[in-house]
Amino acid sequence: MRPEIQDIQDAGLRISGYVHRTPILSSALLDRELGCELVFKCENLQKVGAFKARGAHNAVLKLGEEQRSRGVATHSSGNHAAALALAASHFDIPAYIVMPENAPTSKVAAVRAYGAAITFCESTQAARESTLAELCQRTGAHFIPPYDHPDIIAGQGTATLEIVAQLARAPDYLLVPVGGGGLLAGSAIASKALMPATRVIGAEPAGADDAMRSFQSGQRQPQTAPETVADGLRTALGQLNFTIIREQVDDILTANDDVIITAMRLVWTRMKLVIEPSAAVGLAVVMSHPERFRGKRVAVILTGGNVDLDKLPW
Amino acid sequence: MRPEIQDIQDAGLRISGYVHRTPILSSALLDRELGCELVFKCENLQKVGAFKARGAHNAVLKLGEEQRSRGVATHSSGNHAAALALAASHFDIPAYIVMPENAPTSKVAAVRAYGAAITFCESTQAARESTLAELCQRTGAHFIPPYDHPDIIAGQGTATLEIVAQLARAPDYLLVPVGGGGLLAGSAIASKALMPATRVIGAEPAGADDAMRSFQSGQRQPQTAPETVADGLRTALGQLNFTIIREQVDDILTANDDVIITAMRLVWTRMKLVIEPSAAVGLAVVMSHPERFRGKRVAVILTGGNVDLDKLPW
Repeated sequence: MRPEIQDIQDAGLRISGYVHRTPILSSALLDRELGCELVFKCENLQKVGAFKARGAHNAVLKLGEEQRSRGVATHSSGNHAAALALAASHFDIPAYIVMPENAPTSKVAAVRAYGAAITFCESTQAARESTLAELCQRTGAHFIPPYDHPDIIAGQGTATLEIVAQLARAPDYLLVPVGGGGLLAGSAIASKALMPATRVIGAEPAGADDAMRSFQSGQRQPQTAPETVADGLRTALGQLNFTIIREQVDDILTANDDVIITAMRLVWTRMKLVIEPSAAVGLAVVMSHPERFRGKRVAVILTGGNVDLDKLPW
Repeated sequence: MRPEIQDIQDAGLRISGYVHRTPILSSALLDRELGCELVFKCENLQKVGAFKARGAHNAVLKLGEEQRSRGVATHSSGNHAAALALAASHFDIPAYIVMPENAPTSKVAAVRAYGAAITFCESTQAARESTLAELCQRTGAHFIPPYDHPDIIAGQGTATLEIVAQLARAPDYLLVPVGGGGLLAGSAIASKALMPATRVIGAEPAGADDAMRSFQSGQRQPQTAPETVADGLRTALGQLNFTIIREQVDDILTANDDVIITAMRLVWTRMKLVIEPSAAVGLAVVMSHPERFRGKRVAVILTGGNVDLDKLPW
């Protein structure tokens, strides 16, 4: 079940034409300020404004035609929902999205813009899961999970395939935000296979540090009462992702919310890129551990850019 | 004195390595919403966050070594000042910038960050010019004007050289914001030489419409009491630029401030790009004249991304 580099390479071919090959950008001024050489993989410029488009497209494309024709479903209040809705729209199949009734109107509007059918439910994990199960039962739609699945992991790993192709030489570090862990797991598999000397670091908000605790203890730890501005990273680490991360990731480092907000604002002002708080955690980790990254070449994945412009955190 | 396509091509070679070849980005969702096929040349991702880096580098690189060694000077409260400061820093020569004493602290900080020596003066055109003249007299520095000069025009025109190389086929329209007119003049020369079927349109705020009035009357009209959120386009059209624009530009269209702000916000939310109000005027013109652009392929230059995040216009 665990994806290998070949699965990621297959995913890369499968989803090309459906998702963007996003650019890598850098800022000489930012490098000077932070004392290292940073390159940013701009997944905020990806379709639906987040790397999630990669995994969702890979998972939908891997379905058999008959299965796919009955539609796809998921529960999510975030970027995975929009990504799945877009992927479904390419095949003219229904996308059923279960969203909590208190989901931000901007996220609801985004999912609706891609043509998905939204079912609202109470804002508890139990309500989401039972609503989704009932929906899949009734429609025959196939559940596409948001992060803890080989096809999702392989899809997310394609961002690092592109980094390998786009950089003239391998970076010293690859920094990847970690929530559910799909992107970090896929990135680690791709990075270790193709850039073995590059150290892969998970970047996590200090207020939602279950991945770091799990990594350090060797046992998956629960995410208890996460509190961070990085709303996309409040998710608990998935089981398959944990298994991969424990073996293939070199370290997980955290950053506090004030540094995450400073990093987010730095990317907006220096790079002219709109990123969401979760996407700033890689840079925030660099800023929180300057001795570790000084003088190093550091690749950072900017994971997404979906943010409410009327509720900025500064 | 008037630059030809060869001057722009020479400028392109001269400044490569000093400035970015900026990406062209698009949004399928935005295209669907607006009913045309838009491609955006992202000069907000240029060095110093604006296309001004092109002209300033071309002008400084064209100076003889002896002349260059005495430094360069200009008066500006905006992107040209930062661009000239950066260009000077590459040669380790002084950049003397005259700025009005009421210039925004963010702009002063940006110019200072590139190592320029700032001289403050009263916020009148007369004070700026006399302070600059005295400075050049005293230091021997060479005045690099912000827009109405062949070397500046040729430098700005290189953005369109890149558009030609980056697009698989020529767009139906090229939309270029116009303030002093250096970018529009250079873009028109490059576009007419290399994409003769493409119509070149100047995009101007309705509240600072001297270029449109000049274009329509055939006589350069003064800019009287400009009032627009697009602070970079309040400048009066230059004389050399007017001569070129009158001959080579197909039309100048305007947009109101409310549409400019809506367009700016659309680029932030759909494209995940930070742009300043002036950079949104091309898209605002498309939105203000939908019948003209419906179903067309439209290239829009996003001119810059320097904006105060604490004073957003929405």
